[in-house]
Amino acid sequence: MTTEKCFAKGSVAPGPVPKDHIRLYSMRFCPFAQRARLVLNAKGIKYDTININLKDKPDWFLEKSPFGLVPTLETPAGEVVYESPITCEYLDEVYPEKRLLPSNPFGKAQQKMMLEHFSKVTPYFYKIPTGRKNGEDVSGLEAELKEKFTKLNELPRSHTGAEEVVRAHVRGPCCQNHHAQHGHLQGLLQDLR
Amino acid sequence: MTTEKCFAKGSVAPGPVPKDHIRLYSMRFCPFAQRARLVLNAKGIKYDTININLKDKPDWFLEKSPFGLVPTLETPAGEVVYESPITCEYLDEVYPEKRLLPSNPFGKAQQKMMLEHFSKVTPYFYKIPTGRKNGEDVSGLEAELKEKFTKLNELPRSHTGAEEVVRAHVRGPCCQNHHAQHGHLQGLLQDLR
Repeated sequence: MTTEKCFAKGSVAPGPVPKDHIRLYSMRFCPFAQRARLVLNAKGIKYDTININLKDKPDWFLEKSPFGLVPTLETPAGEVVYESPITCEYLDEVYPEKRLLPSNPFGKAQQKMMLEHFSKVTPYFYKIPTGRKNGEDVSGLEAELKEKFTKLNELPRSHTGAEEVVRAHVRGPCCQNHHAQHGHLQGLLQDLR
Repeated sequence: MTTEKCFAKGSVAPGPVPKDHIRLYSMRFCPFAQRARLVLNAKGIKYDTININLKDKPDWFLEKSPFGLVPTLETPAGEVVYESPITCEYLDEVYPEKRLLPSNPFGKAQQKMMLEHFSKVTPYFYKIPTGRKNGEDVSGLEAELKEKFTKLNELPRSHTGAEEVVRAHVRGPCCQNHHAQHGHLQGLLQDLR
């Protein structure tokens, strides 16, 4: 069952997770949920999507995922996994075809460090458009974002590993999404390429 | 080379990492560095410790670990790993004797989720004593901490997995450390046991 419908408080819980599928509790514009979607799609995993209204979460969702986070994964056996980096690593281990993370411990650590760095940049994609919408001066935030991106670009290759996975699965969705939604970030981001 | 000395800006960088050892850049009272120390000790890994003055970091340290974080690990080959959960998982993979994380993906995800939950509690161990020292009313923060602990204790076992690793390697050090340093948290923590 995959539907565009968004489940809010008072909604009827979806049925059990179909056999041979995994379920993703998601929100269409959430960049963290997008990480899990990209991994699911890249690996060709069969999944269904249940979109959650994050401002008015259903009780049945909070019973499954006590912190109410998306992405949350649920298996037909009722196993529940949340926190986006944890869901991505879980999927990469359970579905070993087309591995996204390197198998050697240092290569894997490099990818995780890069994701951690980039996670510190993500809040700016919200703070800047929101501040601008409210008529605030966001030049300080833009300078901070630029500084963080510059630092990421300057990291020695030994700290970041191969960039393909990062570009496709971590950095890509946030930038592209907010690019489309918030054209005023475009110039700033293009400067940094 | 393991020394109690704390390296600050202007200090001479320590020599190369000894063969068959791993180096931990640490700070004695940092609960995140403690996580790595506990894993190193539990697994019987040979390591040397370099303590960093986090308020006045040496340039040579920032060259190795661009974000200046402890724990940072360095191998004799010059590989550098930081961010405490990443260092712990790296150590568990590189030194597979006495595995601390389960080998099955869901069990591993459970442990990581528990660590993530507990990481949201840690800041209170600083905010409460600091606020109290400054004569502020910390009753609101104490109530928040209690609520977070209560929620952690209420999590279904299916969300948290076996608790041994968590107690020993995640929750233990923070609580014990701050217990000893800040006796006023003791009553609160005992209530929650």
